[in-house]
Amino acid sequence: MRTYSVYFKPQGKTVEVEKGTSLMDAAQKAGVFLDAPCGGKGQCGKCRVKVIEGEHRYQPSRLIARQEENMGIRLACLTTVEGDMTVEIVQTVGVDDIIVEDITADSTKKSRVKRAVQVLKDSGMKAENSFKSIKIKIKEPTLDDNIPDLERIARELTPLMESKKPVCSVELLRKIPRIIRETGFDVNLVIREDEKHYEILDVAAQKDRKIYGLCVDIGTTTVAACLVDLSTGEIEASANSGNLQMQYGADVISRIIHSTKPGGLENLHDAIVQGNVNKMIRRMMENNACKPEDIVCSVFAGNTTMTHLFLGVPPENIRLEPYIPAFRNSPVFRAKDIALDINPNAPVYVLPNVASYVGGDIVSGVLAAGFWNSDEVTLFMDLGTNGELVLGNREWMVACACSAGPAFEGGDISCGMRAAPGAIESVRIDNKTLIPDIVTIGNTKPAGICGSGIIDLIAEMFFSGIIDGKGKIKQFSKSCRIRFDRHSGCREYLLVPAEDTENGREIVINEIDIDNFLRAKGAVFSGIKTLLNSVGLGMEDIKKVIVAGGIGQNLDIENSIQIGLLPDIDRSRFEFIGNSSLMGAYLCLISDEARQAASQIAELMTYIELSADPAYMEEFVSACFLPHTDISLFPSVQARI
Amino acid sequence: MRTYSVYFKPQGKTVEVEKGTSLMDAAQKAGVFLDAPCGGKGQCGKCRVKVIEGEHRYQPSRLIARQEENMGIRLACLTTVEGDMTVEIVQTVGVDDIIVEDITADSTKKSRVKRAVQVLKDSGMKAENSFKSIKIKIKEPTLDDNIPDLERIARELTPLMESKKPVCSVELLRKIPRIIRETGFDVNLVIREDEKHYEILDVAAQKDRKIYGLCVDIGTTTVAACLVDLSTGEIEASANSGNLQMQYGADVISRIIHSTKPGGLENLHDAIVQGNVNKMIRRMMENNACKPEDIVCSVFAGNTTMTHLFLGVPPENIRLEPYIPAFRNSPVFRAKDIALDINPNAPVYVLPNVASYVGGDIVSGVLAAGFWNSDEVTLFMDLGTNGELVLGNREWMVACACSAGPAFEGGDISCGMRAAPGAIESVRIDNKTLIPDIVTIGNTKPAGICGSGIIDLIAEMFFSGIIDGKGKIKQFSKSCRIRFDRHSGCREYLLVPAEDTENGREIVINEIDIDNFLRAKGAVFSGIKTLLNSVGLGMEDIKKVIVAGGIGQNLDIENSIQIGLLPDIDRSRFEFIGNSSLMGAYLCLISDEARQAASQIAELMTYIELSADPAYMEEFVSACFLPHTDISLFPSVQARI
Repeated sequence: MRTYSVYFKPQGKTVEVEKGTSLMDAAQKAGVFLDAPCGGKGQCGKCRVKVIEGEHRYQPSRLIARQEENMGIRLACLTTVEGDMTVEIVQTVGVDDIIVEDITADSTKKSRVKRAVQVLKDSGMKAENSFKSIKIKIKEPTLDDNIPDLERIARELTPLMESKKPVCSVELLRKIPRIIRETGFDVNLVIREDEKHYEILDVAAQKDRKIYGLCVDIGTTTVAACLVDLSTGEIEASANSGNLQMQYGADVISRIIHSTKPGGLENLHDAIVQGNVNKMIRRMMENNACKPEDIVCSVFAGNTTMTHLFLGVPPENIRLEPYIPAFRNSPVFRAKDIALDINPNAPVYVLPNVASYVGGDIVSGVLAAGFWNSDEVTLFMDLGTNGELVLGNREWMVACACSAGPAFEGGDISCGMRAAPGAIESVRIDNKTLIPDIVTIGNTKPAGICGSGIIDLIAEMFFSGIIDGKGKIKQFSKSCRIRFDRHSGCREYLLVPAEDTENGREIVINEIDIDNFLRAKGAVFSGIKTLLNSVGLGMEDIKKVIVAGGIGQNLDIENSIQIGLLPDIDRSRFEFIGNSSLMGAYLCLISDEARQAASQIAELMTYIELSADPAYMEEFVSACFLPHTDISLFPSVQARI
Repeated sequence: MRTYSVYFKPQGKTVEVEKGTSLMDAAQKAGVFLDAPCGGKGQCGKCRVKVIEGEHRYQPSRLIARQEENMGIRLACLTTVEGDMTVEIVQTVGVDDIIVEDITADSTKKSRVKRAVQVLKDSGMKAENSFKSIKIKIKEPTLDDNIPDLERIARELTPLMESKKPVCSVELLRKIPRIIRETGFDVNLVIREDEKHYEILDVAAQKDRKIYGLCVDIGTTTVAACLVDLSTGEIEASANSGNLQMQYGADVISRIIHSTKPGGLENLHDAIVQGNVNKMIRRMMENNACKPEDIVCSVFAGNTTMTHLFLGVPPENIRLEPYIPAFRNSPVFRAKDIALDINPNAPVYVLPNVASYVGGDIVSGVLAAGFWNSDEVTLFMDLGTNGELVLGNREWMVACACSAGPAFEGGDISCGMRAAPGAIESVRIDNKTLIPDIVTIGNTKPAGICGSGIIDLIAEMFFSGIIDGKGKIKQFSKSCRIRFDRHSGCREYLLVPAEDTENGREIVINEIDIDNFLRAKGAVFSGIKTLLNSVGLGMEDIKKVIVAGGIGQNLDIENSIQIGLLPDIDRSRFEFIGNSSLMGAYLCLISDEARQAASQIAELMTYIELSADPAYMEEFVSACFLPHTDISLFPSVQARI
């Protein structure tokens, strides 16, 4: 078979592929990231590239305008290599961009950390972990005092560790003789205690060594991480980035399918570990004296599929009836077991799963939300990819997963994007002119719209009369922002014209997008109803609603109620706490007791499989309407209309 | 630099080396084993090769006869490559030959195993280990019973394990979903329990799976191993082989020096793990249904340097004053940590060291000898490479190491070899004709002489008047077996003429050999005296003498006393127990309690550094005489003379 070389700009990477290989496969082989939420089926239109030169074949797509086609714009998944090529990657807001945040300058995030720490205190748990950085002066050996190195170190620790015995990895044992002599027997030890032993995780020359922990929320769409000073609990750096598994599919199902292909599981495992987490660690360390070996503990929270892929465990049975994960409680592994670029002996704690579609991210979120320690019946909603709900209090909890898809994180929406700089996060539409007023994250030129922006946009379109209760766009003559698009075959609303956007492409929402969103919000609301029904409670019995998730920082609670996503109850009962999964992982990092509590929370939750509940489908159909077919559920919206 | 290729026969291996490389280095690079107890200094004459063709340079050696030199025989360490070469390896009894023994057919060995097991019973310890092979039928998952795989397995084990939680390696977790489904949820588990958890070491399809343990004695000269059925304690196979580290030096000191060279530590670690242990495992499995993953536990005993090299831990401080090992109690590692070819999750237990020159092999030997549980003052002697002594009982123990060198295992003796087939293990000399009568191990043609043979030979030479008390050969006219050798510059005794040996070379002992042996036995006897002095006891206070070690199965106690190696006390107090280090490792494999006892034994022993004792040197000088300068210490010899 003939092979050709493909050169990717601006990455400057070249790859040799066989004739007829798709540009998407070539990019994956070259290690060039292409967003492909549909998994390479030609449906999402996000893998756009520009062919600079070279023979190729392509299927035309309704997602590429004729003018774009003439400029060489192609969908990589529908284009095959037929000669040596030069291809330009034209995606401008890369999923693989890592955003390092200055948490000390962000008052919202700071207050969320405070809130989480308060939860810890309120429940009487100590912010104490079993990791210690200890400076010791070891007695130099003599002929009369000739005990071995390891026992010599242990002798100095006897006052602290009493009769506990030291253990360590063979790699560390191999290093000990050299290090203690090079440092003149004056060393720093990193120690982790358990009941019968203590483990020496590292021995180094530094005398005042800071030790760090890593906590990570592995979202299907977004990965968020913090680097934490383990002795003070201070967050030293924080970062987020798109989940690079996106190139193999936007949702857990398409990724599970990819995992069953030859090499597929390795692709997905490498994407999250090497592509996301290890790179984020490096970026977080850049402005910091921290070295990889100083990071001596790590905690990971993710949904059940994400934690399987993170550990490299085949997730395929999650998808097949009767939907069985490989594990609920992951044993504690070491960083070296999964090639994490931190101290190789650092424990890797993975928060426990509840069921196939309610994972450790939800357990982590409930931990951070704090109602597991309260008598008040609370509804906890995680609006990320899909949407998971937990209802309960300290006595009981029921949980379910709604098939909401990735709409709340900008997926399934043609101009959607995750809550990253350039994303429109808030929208107001003038009732008369129908001209929108937008706010973007980072106040930059808009590049797309994130979850909170879409909620605003749909609420505003509904109340300004652009769309009806079914989400259909009414025919207006008074605004040129409302148009019919022959590619999609439906009407659309122009949010931002091409000249005002970051990438020179219009930002538009069409009826298909709106329909996708209505199904997502319908799935969530009908989930709430089903949970309440399962325990015989009604909307008014919910004393508190805690909304979490990657939906965007500035979620407008009022608009979310108006469109029928959140229950129409007293607004003072709502609280938006942002990425609660990351906050829970943070608590587990700074507190051994919090990690214990997370296990108990997972045990407490009863999982309700919505697809097995015959009433759910009916609830869902009723909820795919603005705000709901049963308007009596939304008295405040009824009053407004 | 020009490179040339060297072809080694009969191995059929070719290697490219630079001009001027020694044939010894070329052989090491090619992975061809050459015995080199002197470490390549041209002193031992054991790295003989035959150059078939090719340009080379060599230094003449007194160890190669002129006739041999003409045939192309060279010492590999003194020969450099100056062109493409073909070289034949002429060593006939290879150190690297693995001898698999049929223990069931060997009544001596069988009775030694019985003796060891009796020690266990006598001390009230149970022959129980924490490893179990369990066959379980897992309930198949349904929509109503959808707990994850790991928890599903654990549920079946609840009756056995109660509230203990399962742990496993990430590699095993990755395999679990596939294996349990492929087997129709009908699997075998290998489990190891501890206080709070149980570890799943393996999951497999076999329903009646036997699990095995491996115990190994890593001697400086000889490595011995057994494969044990963990449920019955039966020894399924046993093997021994020369320690392949021999190519880097015969004794611990020359190996420690080699370990400090670039790549030296890796050479030594690979030689023992890959070259010896992994090959011995494969050989022991050959006549057995056992697979590597069925070996789920391993116990290793060796002297302090050997255990360091086995784990890849730098041993250099053992040699440098104040002689500090890296560890006494090795943490428990896993087979995968040191690339052992058994179940990757199998624990690796290494018996604890006492000091730099009294190691885990002695602790293991004392465990197997049993006097740690007795009131009788016992002298335990391990006569392998060097010689280690322990004196004591259940209340106290003192231990020392004698610088005896490898003479008891055939080292430091020109025709010496380890106790392997072809080794002369017993000798009688006719007083009149001076013609010897020999017995070889395996009753094959003789190839050399092992420790027990040398003791016999020297005793017989002494009492037949061939040598005097200083070990000098008297001038005889009546026997052509006594000659002067101009190469060695001293007299020698012809034990076996060339035509009767396995390799066509004479077996001879000369005055240098005898001197080396006298120094070895002197070192041991003066060690005994020093230990006794240290606790204020005399020879008659020794109620029992237990002799162990690689000296050869058929040690003649009487001859050993006659030459002044063993104390001249009542013969009924002596017992020879063979490789006690291997037997102790075997006990630790079949009994968790024995492993605990070994730690206590190590704690109990007080190490006495002979080189720091001013009286020792005087004792040593007096003891380098047949039987001793103070003949009153050997009343039975005095009577005979």
